[in-house]
Amino acid sequence: MSLGTEGTRPEDYRYWADERVRFYDLDLMGHVNNVAYTIYAESGRAAFLRHIGFWTETGRRQNVIARLEIDYRQELKYPNELRVGLNVQRIGGSSFTLGIGIFAGAVCVATARATLVRFDAETRKAIALNDEDRSILASYLAS
Amino acid sequence: MSLGTEGTRPEDYRYWADERVRFYDLDLMGHVNNVAYTIYAESGRAAFLRHIGFWTETGRRQNVIARLEIDYRQELKYPNELRVGLNVQRIGGSSFTLGIGIFAGAVCVATARATLVRFDAETRKAIALNDEDRSILASYLAS
Amino acid sequence: MSLGTEGTRPEDYRYWADERVRFYDLDLMGHVNNVAYTIYAESGRAAFLRHIGFWTETGRRQNVIARLEIDYRQELKYPNELRVGLNVQRIGGSSFTLGIGIFAGAVCVATARATLVRFDAETRKAIALNDEDRSILASYLAS
Amino acid sequence: MSLGTEGTRPEDYRYWADERVRFYDLDLMGHVNNVAYTIYAESGRAAFLRHIGFWTETGRRQNVIARLEIDYRQELKYPNELRVGLNVQRIGGSSFTLGIGIFAGAVCVATARATLVRFDAETRKAIALNDEDRSILASYLAS
Repeated sequence: MSLGTEGTRPEDYRYWADERVRFYDLDLMGHVNNVAYTIYAESGRAAFLRHIGFWTETGRRQNVIARLEIDYRQELKYPNELRVGLNVQRIGGSSFTLGIGIFAGAVCVATARATLVRFDAETRKAIALNDEDRSILASYLAS
Repeated sequence: MSLGTEGTRPEDYRYWADERVRFYDLDLMGHVNNVAYTIYAESGRAAFLRHIGFWTETGRRQNVIARLEIDYRQELKYPNELRVGLNVQRIGGSSFTLGIGIFAGAVCVATARATLVRFDAETRKAIALNDEDRSILASYLAS
Repeated sequence: MSLGTEGTRPEDYRYWADERVRFYDLDLMGHVNNVAYTIYAESGRAAFLRHIGFWTETGRRQNVIARLEIDYRQELKYPNELRVGLNVQRIGGSSFTLGIGIFAGAVCVATARATLVRFDAETRKAIALNDEDRSILASYLAS
Repeated sequence: MSLGTEGTRPEDYRYWADERVRFYDLDLMGHVNNVAYTIYAESGRAAFLRHIGFWTETGRRQNVIARLEIDYRQELKYPNELRVGLNVQRIGGSSFTLGIGIFAGAVCVATARATLVRFDAETRKAIALNDEDRSILASYLAS
């Protein structure tokens, strides 16, 4: 149960997206619900995939999530401004793994890892990462 | 990237909760959003914790989630009735791990694992599982 | 501020959809959040529009919401099974108004009214209700 | 069905809160779901109530929503930064009505009205607005 510190430092990340705790994200214990953290991770992922050109609204090459792991590190209160850090942890054949860190100020409140699969929106099947995909992802690899 | 089949059979689970895909759970690709799967997992967890007496609305002994892992196995469409299966995979000092399977009919659409920590709602600190807690959890251990 | 009783009786409705309170729907006051009621209303609306053939996943004729009014009548607790009642209150040129009642057992916890506009998914413009549309809607008119 | 222009000008509002469209807010038609607009309205309301001292996390005097009306005026896309404007439209005995405008840049995408009731969190009953409440609300009255 002892969590490591992997991914808890802002310098671990290569791209940043802004998020903000909504009142709606609170649960009956008065803190941000566990599900909302996965929404923050999605917000970071979506901004990153759009930024690198992996996602366009009408594009045929899309991405679907295959696996998500999230470590909850700190309670989170309302109101709060968040920053979501992203890096690339693994580049596979048709899949890749992103590292995600959610920060409130300098405090890392959660770390996550998401494995995504390149996906053809018409055939609804996985497709291989092409050379351009690989080169883009490589430039965000965690050091 | 090849997912194992662990947790994909209904007989792996010891407790069941009902869920239902909402129209609201769909995203712009026309299938259930990845976040909604974590809501289904939460629904299963909440029903289970209430069923075994680990959660009451005003109780001082509560549970907080420390880690969630989820493997997305199948696209999910609207409308759909779901069943969420639960078992206990590990009993620690102050924490325990639940196995979760989300099924649409006989098809396992996702498996998840959630590590929860027993938590004092007043001190907001982790507390040890007591003998009664352990005995209850043990009766739901995955075989 | 005194709410009338309009729409609070089950016999006011002509179509029913099932809903269920999720743990996720609770807020920090321990009751169902106001937003969740609008999700229940959407669930009822979506089931009704699908039932009468006004919504198909790939259909060009869709519906968009122009106005929603909701009267919150009772606190709602977890867990709970809900039924959402629907009727047609008005049939216009390109728009129509649905009446919605949300019930927990025999208790009406909220009433709502939603005005929807027939919409062409390609041109993204409003379109007139055709004769078939009108005839279908007329058969669900509130008495 | 012709919507007036009431509440569509930024100068109609007396307090502003920031919001941001999340990827999660999109639905299968590729635009922001109708429910998300009600979440933006809640975000604005929560920020305003906190700002004027009507809401504190542990306060006994709380507010519950009795009625919400929302007019959807424009489709909304991702990504987008929003501003939510608030004013006071009516001060009653134990209730008050807020005007809400949701803007993307200079464009008003929705207007809403929410009637809230002052509420005692212990007795769970409505309570009268006191003189201080009235004086605070009066300073945000729509002109």
